[in-house]
Amino acid sequence: MSAITATPIPGLPEVRPGDDLAGLLAAAAPDLRDGDVLCVAHKVVSKAEGRVVDLRDVEPGARARELAAAHGKDPRHLEVVLREAAAIVRERPGVLICRTRHGYVCANAGVDASNAGAGERLVLLPLDPDASARALRAALRARAGVAPAVVITDSFGRAWRRGQCETAIGVAGLAPIDDWDGRVDSDGRPLRATAIAIADEAAAAADLARAKDSREPAVVVRGLERHVSAQDGPGAAALVRPVAEDLFI
Amino acid sequence: MSAITATPIPGLPEVRPGDDLAGLLAAAAPDLRDGDVLCVAHKVVSKAEGRVVDLRDVEPGARARELAAAHGKDPRHLEVVLREAAAIVRERPGVLICRTRHGYVCANAGVDASNAGAGERLVLLPLDPDASARALRAALRARAGVAPAVVITDSFGRAWRRGQCETAIGVAGLAPIDDWDGRVDSDGRPLRATAIAIADEAAAAADLARAKDSREPAVVVRGLERHVSAQDGPGAAALVRPVAEDLFI
Repeated sequence: MSAITATPIPGLPEVRPGDDLAGLLAAAAPDLRDGDVLCVAHKVVSKAEGRVVDLRDVEPGARARELAAAHGKDPRHLEVVLREAAAIVRERPGVLICRTRHGYVCANAGVDASNAGAGERLVLLPLDPDASARALRAALRARAGVAPAVVITDSFGRAWRRGQCETAIGVAGLAPIDDWDGRVDSDGRPLRATAIAIADEAAAAADLARAKDSREPAVVVRGLERHVSAQDGPGAAALVRPVAEDLFI
Repeated sequence: MSAITATPIPGLPEVRPGDDLAGLLAAAAPDLRDGDVLCVAHKVVSKAEGRVVDLRDVEPGARARELAAAHGKDPRHLEVVLREAAAIVRERPGVLICRTRHGYVCANAGVDASNAGAGERLVLLPLDPDASARALRAALRARAGVAPAVVITDSFGRAWRRGQCETAIGVAGLAPIDDWDGRVDSDGRPLRATAIAIADEAAAAADLARAKDSREPAVVVRGLERHVSAQDGPGAAALVRPVAEDLFI
């Protein structure tokens, strides 16, 4: 098997609501090609889509004020988290672990102030990150004539382990999972329960190549051509374990 | 920032108990250098260390027989799982999610039959994977004069998400976590709660470069020099969230 490379795209400007993200990416990465996996931190996608809230416009409700008092946080911030959360999975001092409407389990329902731009602004997750990934892929195809797979990512904490890993929240054109069911190992023994979360591993590889404090939200991962398809495929939704199957919600 | 590459090491022979793994790796990867991160699937480490059990030697106890009846599994296999588990975290049909003595939460306490070699053999996790990583690093230094960081990996399932990701279970010479506490984002705002699980992301990147059914248990990840140190560091133990802190055990 050949090598995998992850290379950040340099020179992207600050992204603002309404910006043409595909155009910015195509201009900054003229060597993008079919078979590449373009990993994009969700923040620039969310910003381009206008998924930004100005705290000065937020009126906290009773529940947000109650949680804010318990956690020592800004009640307006918690109001935004509550609006984004389908459920609060666990509370710990200073953080709410939430299930988002998409089914992602993460701190503060993905609502984040870091790298949100000047002022008191929060960045939300895209409304439908798989749709965002498909739209970005289609726009790249229309604009630059190439259709790399697109993975939109966020850094999520994990149960049982310290530290965050970059994770796929929107996918188009990459098999989210490589399912080995039915294949055999090197001794000819059937492999069971081996389903590799390719899209999450690609997100993680991309994260290693960029610095969170620099303006490098996009990374090209090359060498995954065998998992890239012309069809957009099932998206990151296929990575969500349904609540009924999950033992930890 | 420059690119990250992940390149599998070709041509490793089947590893057997007592084999000199460092010698095999040094011979197969003559271009290894300081600053590289050598990711090795735990199975070859466990095999070299003799952490292999022949099912014909296992006498299942009452609890193993009881679980085997409930889950439709081989009671000898479950006896081995129970011996490796510090606790059973959750049960679901066909799989036990266990906490190992090292603190790792994974299916079947990391006991695995796939790629275990011919016959009825199971491969266990190394007794102390951080010590295994340090020993492998020291042996590479002694034998080849280079001391790449070493990451021993296994593929673990996750709460809330489908599919497995390759995960660091033993680390020497790589910062397991890059803690951004105290740094600022691109707007100058303090970054809070950003601690990137570098070793897990490196394990994931390495996994993309190899095929589980081929004989490519080792992958060189290059481009992480800023996280590699001459000292072995705290190891993968730093990635384990203590039970008292965890909300999902």
